[in-house]
Amino acid sequence: MEKQSSLMEGQTGKTIAHDLAKKQRDIGVAEFFSRNRHLLGFDNKRKALMTTIKEAVDNSLDACEEARILPEIFVEVIEMGEDRYRVIVEDNGPGILKSEVPKIFAKLLYGSKFHSMKQSRGQQGIGISASVMYGQLTTGRAAKIRTRISKNKAALFYKVKINTKKNIPDTTEPQEVDWGDKEHGTKIEIDLEATYLGGNQSIDEYIKETAITNPHATIIYTNPKAQQIDFIRVVDKLPVEPKEIKPHPYGVEIGALQDMLKGTDSRTLQAFLTSEFTRVGAGTAKLICENSALLPNASPKRLSREQVEQLMNGIKKTKIINPPTDCLSPITAADLEKGLRKEVNAEFYCSSTRPPSVYRGNPFIIEVGMAYGGALETDGSMKLIRFANRVPLLFQQGACAVTKSVLATAWRNYGLSQSKGALPTGPLVVAIHIASVWVPFTSESKEAIAHYPEIIKEIKLAIQDCGRKLGSYVNKKKRIQVEGKKRDYITTYIPFVSDALKEILELTDDDKAKIEENLSVILEKTRGKLEDMKFDPTKSEDYDENLANIGKGETEDGKEEE
Amino acid sequence: MEKQSSLMEGQTGKTIAHDLAKKQRDIGVAEFFSRNRHLLGFDNKRKALMTTIKEAVDNSLDACEEARILPEIFVEVIEMGEDRYRVIVEDNGPGILKSEVPKIFAKLLYGSKFHSMKQSRGQQGIGISASVMYGQLTTGRAAKIRTRISKNKAALFYKVKINTKKNIPDTTEPQEVDWGDKEHGTKIEIDLEATYLGGNQSIDEYIKETAITNPHATIIYTNPKAQQIDFIRVVDKLPVEPKEIKPHPYGVEIGALQDMLKGTDSRTLQAFLTSEFTRVGAGTAKLICENSALLPNASPKRLSREQVEQLMNGIKKTKIINPPTDCLSPITAADLEKGLRKEVNAEFYCSSTRPPSVYRGNPFIIEVGMAYGGALETDGSMKLIRFANRVPLLFQQGACAVTKSVLATAWRNYGLSQSKGALPTGPLVVAIHIASVWVPFTSESKEAIAHYPEIIKEIKLAIQDCGRKLGSYVNKKKRIQVEGKKRDYITTYIPFVSDALKEILELTDDDKAKIEENLSVILEKTRGKLEDMKFDPTKSEDYDENLANIGKGETEDGKEEE
Repeated sequence: MEKQSSLMEGQTGKTIAHDLAKKQRDIGVAEFFSRNRHLLGFDNKRKALMTTIKEAVDNSLDACEEARILPEIFVEVIEMGEDRYRVIVEDNGPGILKSEVPKIFAKLLYGSKFHSMKQSRGQQGIGISASVMYGQLTTGRAAKIRTRISKNKAALFYKVKINTKKNIPDTTEPQEVDWGDKEHGTKIEIDLEATYLGGNQSIDEYIKETAITNPHATIIYTNPKAQQIDFIRVVDKLPVEPKEIKPHPYGVEIGALQDMLKGTDSRTLQAFLTSEFTRVGAGTAKLICENSALLPNASPKRLSREQVEQLMNGIKKTKIINPPTDCLSPITAADLEKGLRKEVNAEFYCSSTRPPSVYRGNPFIIEVGMAYGGALETDGSMKLIRFANRVPLLFQQGACAVTKSVLATAWRNYGLSQSKGALPTGPLVVAIHIASVWVPFTSESKEAIAHYPEIIKEIKLAIQDCGRKLGSYVNKKKRIQVEGKKRDYITTYIPFVSDALKEILELTDDDKAKIEENLSVILEKTRGKLEDMKFDPTKSEDYDENLANIGKGETEDGKEEE
Repeated sequence: MEKQSSLMEGQTGKTIAHDLAKKQRDIGVAEFFSRNRHLLGFDNKRKALMTTIKEAVDNSLDACEEARILPEIFVEVIEMGEDRYRVIVEDNGPGILKSEVPKIFAKLLYGSKFHSMKQSRGQQGIGISASVMYGQLTTGRAAKIRTRISKNKAALFYKVKINTKKNIPDTTEPQEVDWGDKEHGTKIEIDLEATYLGGNQSIDEYIKETAITNPHATIIYTNPKAQQIDFIRVVDKLPVEPKEIKPHPYGVEIGALQDMLKGTDSRTLQAFLTSEFTRVGAGTAKLICENSALLPNASPKRLSREQVEQLMNGIKKTKIINPPTDCLSPITAADLEKGLRKEVNAEFYCSSTRPPSVYRGNPFIIEVGMAYGGALETDGSMKLIRFANRVPLLFQQGACAVTKSVLATAWRNYGLSQSKGALPTGPLVVAIHIASVWVPFTSESKEAIAHYPEIIKEIKLAIQDCGRKLGSYVNKKKRIQVEGKKRDYITTYIPFVSDALKEILELTDDDKAKIEENLSVILEKTRGKLEDMKFDPTKSEDYDENLANIGKGETEDGKEEE
């Protein structure tokens, strides 16, 4: 046993607590993430390349849509040396103000999307600055930014670095530069340590899936082999603009409510409720006050903790309609199915959209599309394609709420075989999209969706909706196959029957032939016409083989991520 | 097609970029994590309780060990109402200075462990403040802290809250309070929304596993059913104190190296190298300079980016011995095995420790223990127990590098059956511990280890080391079983043989009995003595049934996490 008390205090009156206190200090956000870079999607060189491109393209698409501009995005990846690549992403977005450029590209936790309840790809204000930081850490080089906000202003050029100790930008003075005809837009260039591989989970696949779920965007992509692939927009219309909403009373927690009450400008509780929340008019506000046993003209700032708790209970007791869903911009079931038709050469397609739902006060919508049979492989597991706010999710399938929902579905009901706890087996591709004002990702790298029960439930229901359509097709096909076999069987025996009849009745060969024909006709008549459900791979009008093959090159063995 | 250029600039000269810029703002760290609370282990009410206790206990153990005090920790969980619990954790640690209390408990990213390269349970400076924040958000209540640093000073009492907008503490003035005989220590009390469930992944199990891997700690635990369970220390000696080390040159990246060069007080490159890195003496420093084609007396602050790149290459070219490993404090294979013997009633135990290894400049050690057969169930998958820096990891097994390594091991070599991509089947428990100065977790909640190739490789090697011992036992047992069957078979026929001999040779019954006996003796002689490998469950001296049953109550169906 150590002598404890003697350790506690020396002659100076200093204790161990004094020693330990000396080591305590602030941990910078950028320091934190630079050491924990795997949280941001920089676990390895391959993913680093992918994450960088994804963050840049997501930002470009968000900016264009917010400015109501049809996106036109150039993506180029150039091999600069061993394990060293340059990523260039250029858009025709609204451009960025001079004063904003440094913070947007070189400060973690800075952005416009975190505080607004509105669907967007980015939400955390981390992504692109993390890419700049990773490039800088691994190559020592600054990122290069070029941006222009109007034809009447010059384009500006910056070199940006991030001060990782302080999480502040370390940027050169912007220079005015020529940018030809480009009236507005932003271009970013990052050098980084990376590896380029084709196949599943490649940039090629990511860009393809992005083009499919963003049919209003044109993306011109040049890969490190200097192959240019053009994804030209197929829709000349932007998706409906999602509206920003206020929080819904059901999603607020007591601690947050306390803060809101303290920070409000409203003088009365009723005014506070109507002005700070969605779906709370004067009537509902009064009802909440009544259910809380609080006066509508009480001062929000003066409520005690107990009174705030009353208010919480009052909110729970009051029936308030679900939040509006014009904050969401789903792909639509039809477009999701259209995308599948282009990419997958199947014989049957179906899709479903669920009505909007809410988790922790956040509205969300689930959409599901399925493609079955045809040229799809019949052996092995089904393929799952996941999207969140139109962004394809290529990693961490096992950790995702979408996967959990698929595993929990009884696929046998829809005519597929499935072992316990496994994906169903068969020629099936399932695409699932979640659109939400706040997608709860399992990590900052935004690769998988957290297991919120409301979300898992909705995904399951969407799969069931769509699965029933699939099931009726698969089962019909099975019935036809069984019937076909029966008929084959009967047909096999018709010659023997006619032979026997010929012998017993001493018929001529002509009679025998007639009997055989009659028997076939009777068979057809009694058992009905058999529908032809055979698949002709050349007849798939929507299927685009070139598109489908993008991102399907060989993946080096063992390089695939979970 | 939308009219794009007209959108770009109004009559005022304001562009869309101006509008968008208005929405840009800083995102507070606490705001970020309060919305993304699932990243911190607060995905649901059950896990919230667990995470809170875990963070408090980890801190207590770290503080005691750093102050070289044998830990004595009281943990109490009280049900306060529906879905509302109070967590109380009290230690006999060194206590906390008056000025430090607010920041330690109510500021995310603040602490002593992030910047020191030394093994500890906490590392991020997030955990306990996150628990305070969660409690405050869900109950509106402040956490209560009591701390004392010496018998000569009064104990202090605080109520702490966190200002989530600004990530700063919001604390009452400390009050001097009486704390009886307690000379030093800290006590925290948090009210939070939570659910208590027994079974796997329960607090009970977490505390049990913690007690097993920390045999020097006494933990007195009272669960919500008011059952007190005492885990009394079995070792009166603290683990070896891990030493703090400097970074190793192989682990540094060019961006970080640039920052270090800029920030150094050293006047020459050689001095910089010897003073900032571990394992670099004057000789090695000179060698690095030579390999970099840089002068040893060059000024560190004045190196250009190209020269820093030269330096990087010079470091790579120079042979530098691995970092020292006295920064690590492994459990030791013997203690890991001892723990298994207490908890698992098996017939065979083995354990292995790998030599230290390095990933991204961080030293780490892998230890593995195995328990086989006996009272363990023979059906179903093996059980995997994971630890990182002596902390049991109960969640996200599927996402963990440990699991990946176990799945990638060919268990058939060790006599177990295994389907492709699955855990092996059989009566086997495997405990794996990683000790490192920086454990790369897959999320801030520290539940699973990221897939760094070096770590996966080392875990595999450790499993193989230990697996060979297991394999030789399992295979020997199998051989004995086969041999036993053969002998049974021969024995069955001995009476028939002797009968036949009796008839042919016309022997007496006595002779026949003799022959039978002789045949048995010959059998024994020629085939050797058969070792008895039968398991007697009552003879397991180390096994502690009461301990083993803790945390083994029923888990409600479907409540178990991945």
